[in-house]
Amino acid sequence: MFKVSFPLQNTTIEVRPGTTVLQAEIAADLRPDAPCGGAGTCGKCRVDVLSENGIRKSVLACEARISRDMTVFVRRDDRHQILTEGSEITPELDPPVRALRLKVEKATLQDPSSDWERLKQAVKNAGGPEILPDPVMADGLRGKLEAFSYEPQAVLYKDTLLDLREGGRLLAAAVDIGTTTVVLYLTDLETGEILATKTTMNPQAEFGADVISRANYAMQHTTEKLSSVIRKAVNELLSEALKAAGAASSDLYSVVIAGNTCMHHLFLGIDPSSLVLSPYVPAISEPLVLQASRYGLQGNPRARLFLLPCIAGFVGADTAAVMTACGADRVRKLTLMIDIGTNGELVLSDGQRMAACSTAAGPAFEGAKITFGMRGAEGAIDHAVIRKGMLEYSVIGGGKPRGICGSGLLDLTAAMLNAGILDETGRFADAEDLPEEHQALSRRLRTIDGLRCFVISEESGSGTCIYLSQKDIREVQLAKGAMAAGIALMLEHLGRKAEDIQKVLIAGAFGNYMQPASACAIGLIPKMLLSKIETVGNAAGVGALMCALSEPCLSRAAEMAARTEFIELASNPGFQDRFVEELMFPEEL
Amino acid sequence: MFKVSFPLQNTTIEVRPGTTVLQAEIAADLRPDAPCGGAGTCGKCRVDVLSENGIRKSVLACEARISRDMTVFVRRDDRHQILTEGSEITPELDPPVRALRLKVEKATLQDPSSDWERLKQAVKNAGGPEILPDPVMADGLRGKLEAFSYEPQAVLYKDTLLDLREGGRLLAAAVDIGTTTVVLYLTDLETGEILATKTTMNPQAEFGADVISRANYAMQHTTEKLSSVIRKAVNELLSEALKAAGAASSDLYSVVIAGNTCMHHLFLGIDPSSLVLSPYVPAISEPLVLQASRYGLQGNPRARLFLLPCIAGFVGADTAAVMTACGADRVRKLTLMIDIGTNGELVLSDGQRMAACSTAAGPAFEGAKITFGMRGAEGAIDHAVIRKGMLEYSVIGGGKPRGICGSGLLDLTAAMLNAGILDETGRFADAEDLPEEHQALSRRLRTIDGLRCFVISEESGSGTCIYLSQKDIREVQLAKGAMAAGIALMLEHLGRKAEDIQKVLIAGAFGNYMQPASACAIGLIPKMLLSKIETVGNAAGVGALMCALSEPCLSRAAEMAARTEFIELASNPGFQDRFVEELMFPEEL
Repeated sequence: MFKVSFPLQNTTIEVRPGTTVLQAEIAADLRPDAPCGGAGTCGKCRVDVLSENGIRKSVLACEARISRDMTVFVRRDDRHQILTEGSEITPELDPPVRALRLKVEKATLQDPSSDWERLKQAVKNAGGPEILPDPVMADGLRGKLEAFSYEPQAVLYKDTLLDLREGGRLLAAAVDIGTTTVVLYLTDLETGEILATKTTMNPQAEFGADVISRANYAMQHTTEKLSSVIRKAVNELLSEALKAAGAASSDLYSVVIAGNTCMHHLFLGIDPSSLVLSPYVPAISEPLVLQASRYGLQGNPRARLFLLPCIAGFVGADTAAVMTACGADRVRKLTLMIDIGTNGELVLSDGQRMAACSTAAGPAFEGAKITFGMRGAEGAIDHAVIRKGMLEYSVIGGGKPRGICGSGLLDLTAAMLNAGILDETGRFADAEDLPEEHQALSRRLRTIDGLRCFVISEESGSGTCIYLSQKDIREVQLAKGAMAAGIALMLEHLGRKAEDIQKVLIAGAFGNYMQPASACAIGLIPKMLLSKIETVGNAAGVGALMCALSEPCLSRAAEMAARTEFIELASNPGFQDRFVEELMFPEEL
Repeated sequence: MFKVSFPLQNTTIEVRPGTTVLQAEIAADLRPDAPCGGAGTCGKCRVDVLSENGIRKSVLACEARISRDMTVFVRRDDRHQILTEGSEITPELDPPVRALRLKVEKATLQDPSSDWERLKQAVKNAGGPEILPDPVMADGLRGKLEAFSYEPQAVLYKDTLLDLREGGRLLAAAVDIGTTTVVLYLTDLETGEILATKTTMNPQAEFGADVISRANYAMQHTTEKLSSVIRKAVNELLSEALKAAGAASSDLYSVVIAGNTCMHHLFLGIDPSSLVLSPYVPAISEPLVLQASRYGLQGNPRARLFLLPCIAGFVGADTAAVMTACGADRVRKLTLMIDIGTNGELVLSDGQRMAACSTAAGPAFEGAKITFGMRGAEGAIDHAVIRKGMLEYSVIGGGKPRGICGSGLLDLTAAMLNAGILDETGRFADAEDLPEEHQALSRRLRTIDGLRCFVISEESGSGTCIYLSQKDIREVQLAKGAMAAGIALMLEHLGRKAEDIQKVLIAGAFGNYMQPASACAIGLIPKMLLSKIETVGNAAGVGALMCALSEPCLSRAAEMAARTEFIELASNPGFQDRFVEELMFPEEL
């Protein structure tokens, strides 16, 4: 028997030699996606396996056979990753924008009611609502009715008639505007199928890496520039997705947007200054239904634009989307949701009461404040382990490392703690104090630019060595301290204890890549919760998608946002105490 | 004692010599408007008196003393003319667009709800509704709140926030877009005062005199040209009115528009082709609330544009306005409302059931189909009488006549019938068959261009003689036949008889100028109703004004339009019979 470990799912199983990796995944209850049934033809089961020399290799899980102990990195696509107690990943198709086939009666001298009146009756006869009068849709109505032989298809948002047409696809886009990346899904509202997924970097990055600097830019200059670049970026994703799906722009009737409060405001062209000045409140947080064309978005000229609700200045519409994807209002057990992006938002819900707070955890994990920090792109050290004085790590895309991404930072910190290179206060050990078995690591402990450092790679892609310094470790401590204190305060707010938490759902790209064991080793998440951790991928994007596909989800997002109890950490008297306490690393794994 | 007759009010009284005309008006219960109390300073009491030689002279009623039998033409301004059982001319001020002074709480770390949330609460605290979230109003909200010391004035339409401001006037415009003329009232929504009244010719006239030819133009070319000229004309009236009132355009928050269905469609840019092709139905007839700026109107960028509802293809929003002004839903006695403009719309209401129909009566009375027909402008013969073989007539503005306007046509036809120049079939009498006392008129009976004619003036402003021909009389018969048949069919529809009608309200400029006795003499209105006739001026414009000043009036207009029973005369099996019967003139006065 060989051991197969799935670090991203925090699971290890034993299998017979010759078992395929796909069979191992099934045995581990990972519900892998293999539409061809393991025939080796669809390519959907591709996973990464760690070779003995620490280099990662991409293989088809249905073809690779297990002939040794093996580490397998399985990243499922977002749609499959969101499988949690409270959520319905394929919500019943009941989109806010829908189509109805009508039969309109012709006007006669005996029944000379207006064309609109008869159209309204036809919508009612087809089971629709009483539509609102609209002079734009009334212009040329007779011609349209005749062109469609008095049996047009009506596209509706609630009681608003968006279009009358012969027929065609009914498309929606769901967009998660992150501070760093933008993800767009194009979906068919009649089948629920995802037709295309497109991502791009948020072009606002040139005006600042984080929301504070972008808000400052907007205050010093104007909101307009920041608005126009993000609208343009979303438009480009729309173009790409429509092209990939072979779809006509005019068939796109709905765009649902999630994003943190600053991204939300900037997309809408709303001055974000209230977000960055105490008391850090949104200008507006309610869910919004707007005309997409007014925000420069392509699609049908009458397409609707839905902005999911924000919860607070630093708990945005992305969190509302995560809560929707995770079914925060339907969980039956106390559930902690963590979305680590450029900021870290936390939600604690027992299905009845929901609390949320925000911490500035992101910059450390996204790399901004770490000497060799970088995003999870090619050349990033994304996983690492120390075994008997040997440091092993994997690099995204193979090749020489260029830096360290969030999951790598987590693994390295955990490994350094475990190997005694760091003590629980975060201080570097002296080389001579290293435990016997890790003595070989002492050559990696150096002083560079006056700081104690742990060298990870002598030779980087850029020619210098790559290391973590004492300062980098302090950044990790600050981030993890804030997050752990946030969790503690939310528990206190709801009158619960850490051990009451039955499930921890980690959303966001970082959550998708990190090893839960490392997160617990450094105390980012209480250790006792290790077995409760699940990653849920881009839950914000999926939540937006669910809202596009389901009016009940859209309503639940609004309802949850309104009822979530926001905990302002900065003003909370208990926060500083707890924060300082949580700066310490846990004493042992 | 001298007799003073007020033909426009169908009233005659006797007064002592030396009485002023103003005192005579008061005695006749005409409720004249004399703000200066008869001091001769305000000029508001100006009336026209008929001199002995038939020339009309304009005098101040408070200064002119009665020294002989006298005919006085009193035209009261629209606002004073609408005084009927069912209407409230000064409806309680409860405008659909209103202002509220707010007290907004500042955000704190303890209460970090969004600026919008706190604004919403302030509106509620001030007695307003739960306002809808609006990203446009949310942009820069903090700055606005600070600029107005957190006590801004909110301008609201229902649950829509239109503006936040320091304060200022709250203005509305009410517009009646007639086929021929456009009237605009500018009013103050906080006092109900009319600040300015402006009129202009409808510039669409160059594309056709009547709705049919304009609709044809739109069908052959585009709707756009017709839309843009009328929007421009309304805008110019707005400019003039705002200037006259010394008001800022940004203080105008509401524009209410009435007009016949074709004018309504053309203003909105809606293709009017369904109106002119059988079965003659509107594209849309529901009341509309739109953004004024989207229709190119000046005013506050967030001003609302209200289009009153249409009833049918040829019974438009102008009729809904007339019904509002006349309180058609509140009358307690059977009331006939007649609006004669370019078309003639009829409404019959007992306060419960309301029926409406439309006849093409207008072209005769507006002059289009009459050889010397013209509108009621300078040079038009507007009143006439035959006394003992002598024809007397008055000319608007004095001077030589240029033509005959509607009220003149009515008087002349009545006088000719009365003098035996016409028989009840409308045929001209032979000169030798004239009654003895009118023998002097025989020289006026001639054949011109092969048609029997009655010469009214040998010498016109343009050098030729002015006459009415047999063909002109046939046009009058067609017009009066259609209108009388319409009245008969409405009565039949409601199961009532002509003698049940307790009040006849004549709206429109023509109604304002015509002599009720003449209308009855030719059978335009059943003779038995002569004593029931009242003129109500530009009731369509006043109805629009009432809707601007009163949300209940606006709602009642919508409700009345929806519930009015439209009678399509063309398809009504009884119409042709009745029409032919009503072509005859009544046998005697």
